[in-house]
Amino acid sequence: MNSERLVQIERDILGKNNRIAADNRTRFVADNVLVFNLVSSPGAGKTSLLVRAVSELKRSRPIGVIEGDQQTSNDAERIRSVGVPAIQVNTGKGCHLDAAMIGEAYRRLPLLTRGILFIENVGNLVCPAAFDLGETCKIVVLSTTEGEDKPLKYPDMFAASSLMLVNKIDLTPLLAFDLPKTVEYARRVNPKVEVLTVSARTGEGFGALYAWIDRQGRIKDAPERT
Amino acid sequence: MNSERLVQIERDILGKNNRIAADNRTRFVADNVLVFNLVSSPGAGKTSLLVRAVSELKRSRPIGVIEGDQQTSNDAERIRSVGVPAIQVNTGKGCHLDAAMIGEAYRRLPLLTRGILFIENVGNLVCPAAFDLGETCKIVVLSTTEGEDKPLKYPDMFAASSLMLVNKIDLTPLLAFDLPKTVEYARRVNPKVEVLTVSARTGEGFGALYAWIDRQGRIKDAPERT
Repeated sequence: MNSERLVQIERDILGKNNRIAADNRTRFVADNVLVFNLVSSPGAGKTSLLVRAVSELKRSRPIGVIEGDQQTSNDAERIRSVGVPAIQVNTGKGCHLDAAMIGEAYRRLPLLTRGILFIENVGNLVCPAAFDLGETCKIVVLSTTEGEDKPLKYPDMFAASSLMLVNKIDLTPLLAFDLPKTVEYARRVNPKVEVLTVSARTGEGFGALYAWIDRQGRIKDAPERT
Repeated sequence: MNSERLVQIERDILGKNNRIAADNRTRFVADNVLVFNLVSSPGAGKTSLLVRAVSELKRSRPIGVIEGDQQTSNDAERIRSVGVPAIQVNTGKGCHLDAAMIGEAYRRLPLLTRGILFIENVGNLVCPAAFDLGETCKIVVLSTTEGEDKPLKYPDMFAASSLMLVNKIDLTPLLAFDLPKTVEYARRVNPKVEVLTVSARTGEGFGALYAWIDRQGRIKDAPERT
């Protein structure tokens, strides 16, 4: 297969995904639901972070979660154990969630009017960057143990995200992790990216995260991301 | 595009890759070179691990490295700084190295007769599992900060690997990381996988890793992996 043919196939797949993502976005706006697509390496702590956040946020508004993994429904079970509805999507051989999976999973959740849908993507810093799910915005989670250079090595993901959440900040004293350098690298590929530091283990920084989430709810006409 | 058509395209791409991988393997065997394909999440410590290992192993045999990343040549520079030849392959939008990239990069390295070629794949626990590069075997690096459940969530990669290297073992006292559980999960998807624990930072466990590498060199007719 020649590379022109491959590029055309890629364009077809992404084009189809973008059309479904646009439908999802229309539906989310109509339902008045904020949608955050969480992306990261495997093991950056997305699920631990979500368990803590949804336990707090569910007190003030409807919350739902869609969990993506190649296999297992462990993550959805962790979310449900704190009393929040969660749908697990298993991608099998697949390396990312796509808009059709989200459209289908969303219909299986209770109505989330004036609430929040969190989507936890497959742990992968490459492929999910290209697939719009109809989300309000992407949040990239980077843990301090991964090193400073990830934004430069995986630029598409950091360019596609509105917020970089630096997790496991409680481990910083034990690591040779340079936060200012990490932020500098992230802004080199995405000058507008916002940055917050958190620890899903200790709860440090979650107040600022909730304030950030509330600010997104006040932005009525969020720019469409494709 | 219907899913049958997609499956056919996937089969064509993998079929072409497998043919080139077989050519690479023939070449590696003819040159008497051991080839290890290192795979992991981003930030598991593959490069730090390689910098330490090649610094030691180069004393006794020829060593070469092929570094895969979406962007930057940082990793190849880190390898070259310890006096070992390294070729950087940038995959751009791509999420894995393929056999053609390796065949081409190998030709740019000095001859490694009776030596070792290390391939550091793009940090991604999904896509590189499907792409044979012609290697002797895959080594999956899992860092203690990523949690125990990764073998169950990303089974293809752990099933495809001969050795699981558990890195950052020096951080274990600070984490709620359960090594026996991790090994149990890995063996559930791959009963034959060997396991070693190391710390690229302190050097702990590297003696056992070198002994493991030497054992691979004594296996004359390693089974072909496709």
